[in-house]
Amino acid sequence: MNRQQLTDQIIKKKSYLCVGLDTDVNKLPAHLASSDDPVFEFNRQLIDATQHVAVAYKLNTAFYEANGTKGWDSLKKTLEYIPKECFTIADAKRGDIGNTSALYAKAFFEQLNFDAITVAPYMGEDSVKPFLQFKNRWVILLAHTSNPGSADFQLIESKVTDRRLYEEVMLKAQTWASPDQLMFVVGATQAEKIKHIRQLAPDNFFLVPGIGAQGGDLDTISAMGMNTDCGLLVNSSRAIIYASTGKDFVMAAAKEAGRLQQLMEKHLRVKGLV
Amino acid sequence: MNRQQLTDQIIKKKSYLCVGLDTDVNKLPAHLASSDDPVFEFNRQLIDATQHVAVAYKLNTAFYEANGTKGWDSLKKTLEYIPKECFTIADAKRGDIGNTSALYAKAFFEQLNFDAITVAPYMGEDSVKPFLQFKNRWVILLAHTSNPGSADFQLIESKVTDRRLYEEVMLKAQTWASPDQLMFVVGATQAEKIKHIRQLAPDNFFLVPGIGAQGGDLDTISAMGMNTDCGLLVNSSRAIIYASTGKDFVMAAAKEAGRLQQLMEKHLRVKGLV
Repeated sequence: MNRQQLTDQIIKKKSYLCVGLDTDVNKLPAHLASSDDPVFEFNRQLIDATQHVAVAYKLNTAFYEANGTKGWDSLKKTLEYIPKECFTIADAKRGDIGNTSALYAKAFFEQLNFDAITVAPYMGEDSVKPFLQFKNRWVILLAHTSNPGSADFQLIESKVTDRRLYEEVMLKAQTWASPDQLMFVVGATQAEKIKHIRQLAPDNFFLVPGIGAQGGDLDTISAMGMNTDCGLLVNSSRAIIYASTGKDFVMAAAKEAGRLQQLMEKHLRVKGLV
Repeated sequence: MNRQQLTDQIIKKKSYLCVGLDTDVNKLPAHLASSDDPVFEFNRQLIDATQHVAVAYKLNTAFYEANGTKGWDSLKKTLEYIPKECFTIADAKRGDIGNTSALYAKAFFEQLNFDAITVAPYMGEDSVKPFLQFKNRWVILLAHTSNPGSADFQLIESKVTDRRLYEEVMLKAQTWASPDQLMFVVGATQAEKIKHIRQLAPDNFFLVPGIGAQGGDLDTISAMGMNTDCGLLVNSSRAIIYASTGKDFVMAAAKEAGRLQQLMEKHLRVKGLV
């Protein structure tokens, strides 16, 4: 998917919501247990319930790998079920030497047909570049993540440039790829820094996890992080997919997704984008 | 596997060789094509040919993921086939927020029964700790890798400590886990720095990729990097498994593995370990 198709969809749905299908087989509503593939059945019903407000779906591959080959089947079926107009993200946080990253790129872009994959920057340019060889496929590079440990290394300040590690990552990566192929992961828990982070990468989309269960602030992220074509995909996983653990999980998920879309529409209006 | 069992095996085999089963389905000898599972068949024959000199096997998960569910089957069968005395490494370079890393740990340690997994440090402590909750299972944390891009971020010097990023990673990680659970990835292409790197972590094992195809120097790594119980696992992948692409690939692999073991035995003798 290219950038124009993504922004068209944001405007059409008045939303920049990404639904995170971090589907834990141990947390499924009991009534799905008799299904052939309860994980897929759960995802299918969630996709039906949220696709009118979700512009993207993010599948955290750990949750599928944890179920072995059966998990990979659930992942493939889910990916095929997501409407073609939606942007699909493999949240896999890969990154390895060149020949290995090339294999991961092939697996996620050609075989599984994801639009985007999250990539870890620690190994540098040749670990990221193989993912950039695919037209209209995206790298979403970890920059400043949402977890407590993000402070351990991402905030180290360079003696030479005075910049922090995550700033170095964002600036250097922009020399490798245009904003038509490169996004950054910026945790919603970094809301107080979002204005500064937006200045570092004015034109790139940010994938923002960490609202809801992790406590991030949607209003601040939106008000300070949006750029001229929105430039945000805000992810919610647990707060949507486990909004209820009973038979009403579909209605509860739709309600929470709808609530977030309403907040997002307000911010899009303020910026004159809808 | 605990540290004593690992060092016992190093002394018994007079070797610290790790064989990297980075098995590319497109590079298999033609005569294996008719097998039910050519990847497993290739691995099985390589394991038979090298287990007398290999103390560890490293499976780069990208090569298996690239074949989808069939690839996961090949990986599982390979892992089950490796003799129990050998140390097994999932070269997966994972690392995510706590609840996700916990799932990866479960997948690689409980379901697949690997002894160790490689982990990327960018997301900090809570992304690494879930892997440390399993007794006698190991985290092998990326420190200073073998690829050209390792210079992009790993060498950034901290304004506060004057230490480079990879040094910060090595020192901080040692506050999270003892050398009985924590190893570091140190590329063989960093041979000129190995003496310094050993000072940073005197007691930890290093997993050293990058000899052979990537050009690293086994003699320097061994002479300057060994500690009192060896402390090295030196990996060779392509130079062993693709030593020949014909019907004689097993003999060629055994020969290359044997050549490396001979060099290693010499270094173990110099240190008085055998």
